[in-house]
Amino acid sequence: MTYLDHAATTPMVPAAVEAMAAQLGRVGNASSLHASGREARRVAEQSREQLAAALGARPSEVLFTAGGTEGDNLAVKGLYWARRGVDDRRRRIVASPAEHHAVLDSVEWLEKHDGAEVTWLRVEPSGRITPEALADALGEGTDVALVSVMWANNEIGAVSDVAALAEVAHAVGVPLHTDAVQAVGQLAVDFTASGVDALTMTGHKLGGPMGAGALLLRRDAECTPLLHGGGQERDVRSGTLDVAAIVGLATATRLAVVDRVERVARVAALRDRLVAGVVAQVPDAQLNGPPLDDVVAGGPGRLPGNAHLSFPGAEGDALLMLLDARGIECSTGSACSAGVARPSHVLLATGADAARARSSLRFSLGHTSTDGDVDAVLEVIAPVVERARRAGTGRS
Amino acid sequence: MTYLDHAATTPMVPAAVEAMAAQLGRVGNASSLHASGREARRVAEQSREQLAAALGARPSEVLFTAGGTEGDNLAVKGLYWARRGVDDRRRRIVASPAEHHAVLDSVEWLEKHDGAEVTWLRVEPSGRITPEALADALGEGTDVALVSVMWANNEIGAVSDVAALAEVAHAVGVPLHTDAVQAVGQLAVDFTASGVDALTMTGHKLGGPMGAGALLLRRDAECTPLLHGGGQERDVRSGTLDVAAIVGLATATRLAVVDRVERVARVAALRDRLVAGVVAQVPDAQLNGPPLDDVVAGGPGRLPGNAHLSFPGAEGDALLMLLDARGIECSTGSACSAGVARPSHVLLATGADAARARSSLRFSLGHTSTDGDVDAVLEVIAPVVERARRAGTGRS
Repeated sequence: MTYLDHAATTPMVPAAVEAMAAQLGRVGNASSLHASGREARRVAEQSREQLAAALGARPSEVLFTAGGTEGDNLAVKGLYWARRGVDDRRRRIVASPAEHHAVLDSVEWLEKHDGAEVTWLRVEPSGRITPEALADALGEGTDVALVSVMWANNEIGAVSDVAALAEVAHAVGVPLHTDAVQAVGQLAVDFTASGVDALTMTGHKLGGPMGAGALLLRRDAECTPLLHGGGQERDVRSGTLDVAAIVGLATATRLAVVDRVERVARVAALRDRLVAGVVAQVPDAQLNGPPLDDVVAGGPGRLPGNAHLSFPGAEGDALLMLLDARGIECSTGSACSAGVARPSHVLLATGADAARARSSLRFSLGHTSTDGDVDAVLEVIAPVVERARRAGTGRS
Repeated sequence: MTYLDHAATTPMVPAAVEAMAAQLGRVGNASSLHASGREARRVAEQSREQLAAALGARPSEVLFTAGGTEGDNLAVKGLYWARRGVDDRRRRIVASPAEHHAVLDSVEWLEKHDGAEVTWLRVEPSGRITPEALADALGEGTDVALVSVMWANNEIGAVSDVAALAEVAHAVGVPLHTDAVQAVGQLAVDFTASGVDALTMTGHKLGGPMGAGALLLRRDAECTPLLHGGGQERDVRSGTLDVAAIVGLATATRLAVVDRVERVARVAALRDRLVAGVVAQVPDAQLNGPPLDDVVAGGPGRLPGNAHLSFPGAEGDALLMLLDARGIECSTGSACSAGVARPSHVLLATGADAARARSSLRFSLGHTSTDGDVDAVLEVIAPVVERARRAGTGRS
């Protein structure tokens, strides 16, 4: 099987599975005061320190969550509620229309349900958000609750200069949240150096478990809880700490950061060969997102494992199914909206038309990808596209 | 080590650890359309069917969550928002003041933040909520958004007749949510037969993993999402399905229900011996909550593993630490509020005074409890209480 859907979820690294499985056999609620509880707490806090160190944050800035969706919801809603709580005029949310649905739908719900006004940012054809676009949208910023711009886009891999964006936001006194779910482990992510106020990350995109993530939140960032209760996690996020998953998360994050430079170079080389090979065989295939060798703020301007292509005249869903039948697993976009036959909101936001959006396919490479995986795609892509095109015109 | 804090968290059953560990080694996002994704989906849906069957629900009524806190928050806030969305006069929440903080704090936040009015229910000295108290609080019910009453109390073990309460609520057209986190696996919980509209359960109280639970939600119950995003889980709860944890949850729930009658009889006998032994050695110890042999609606009126006692003149925290030093692990109340030196809101709600509340200790027995555990407590309880009393009066 050729698994090229690492952006949807990537296999757990064995060390994370082992650490997690070992913890599953231990009893202890990290909020309990007895020895078993204190031991569970010690393990959780050690994991917090590991995670913080790997991401340039302080341990007290790490709030464990159940994953990326919760982190995004907590940041967007929590910052909005907290900022409005202090100053009721701060109702405006400035966000990119190319965000993950966890951000988009949170923003839209606040608009519908809770008096938010929304300014959607201008998106470059590459999918990037520029500091100029943010400055234009913010204006004087006095009515703005928060900005949310993802570090790297999950569909087309566009990386934004988040540090520059944070600077623009801070210049007018507005906090910035970034969804870094795809960035951590792929790009150099340093929370403190980036200057952002809140950063969402999750485990299962970098070799850790599903159901475990973190919101990195600056100590001075006020955030209203989404989950009330026992008051765990700085009173911002309640719920019994899932110690086993937290250990798996921290282990995987540490390893993903340690071997990042080497791994990413290898993955990017495979990705480049994949894209070149596909375009050689299907000459009218179009790469979506930034150029493969794009650079932003001194680093990669595109996620190293991301290959997103449109195949004019073929339906993405048909391509996906034809490839799947040949043992190649990829995606038409975000797994989180899979099954819904709508053209990608990300591609539309970049200015692509609906036809191009619907004919697209995402191959995402990761830590287990090999030359054999690339070969497997190159072996079948031309006949698969040909067949999908015939299906599209009713000639098959 | 003598672990008597099963209500805080109970060891995972080996079958659940194995099922979960095996799934951790597999890749696949249950929202992906390719073979790995479909296989993950199959595993998740099979687990959903198992869980539903174990709890008398339909598979489509099971919404997987990250645990009890999320389930309670989703039910309370989601039902409130949805009901107000339909009829803005429905702002009143009727709840028990002896609820877990996940419910209490959600209710209080809605009151402070979102226009809710709250009617706190009258609590029996046993900790139970009666149908009469609910009927009194509801009145005509036309301004009520929802009722929330827990199935069984986590601190003092009081079981309420939830089916009777649901009937009272429905008679005036109001939905009822119940936090059944402590009930599932200990009592006969049948979602459909109970008539409740929403039911929270979690894995780590019954031999499953932390970080995994479910909200059982009737198909006709409108519930606004708390976590927006990919639209997984009936569009009521978004987030990548944590398939490994879900398998562990379903496995543990099935097993806890299968062997319930036998296990619970064994655990209740141990608990009865523990309480009798403690009272024999510390004659002024007072049992909090319902009598051990209490009956409600034809079943146990008290959680079979729950022993909650006050030791006049001794501080609960001191007792806990002295027992811990002797290898006996228990709690002064909910682990979720541990570390906070406040008298239990549950005991205060039953009419107990602050002194009684502060001198209390919870022993909670579970599936791994043995006669040896009971012996261990009985061996040391008298000198421990004596020492705590001396400490309390400054004579130690």
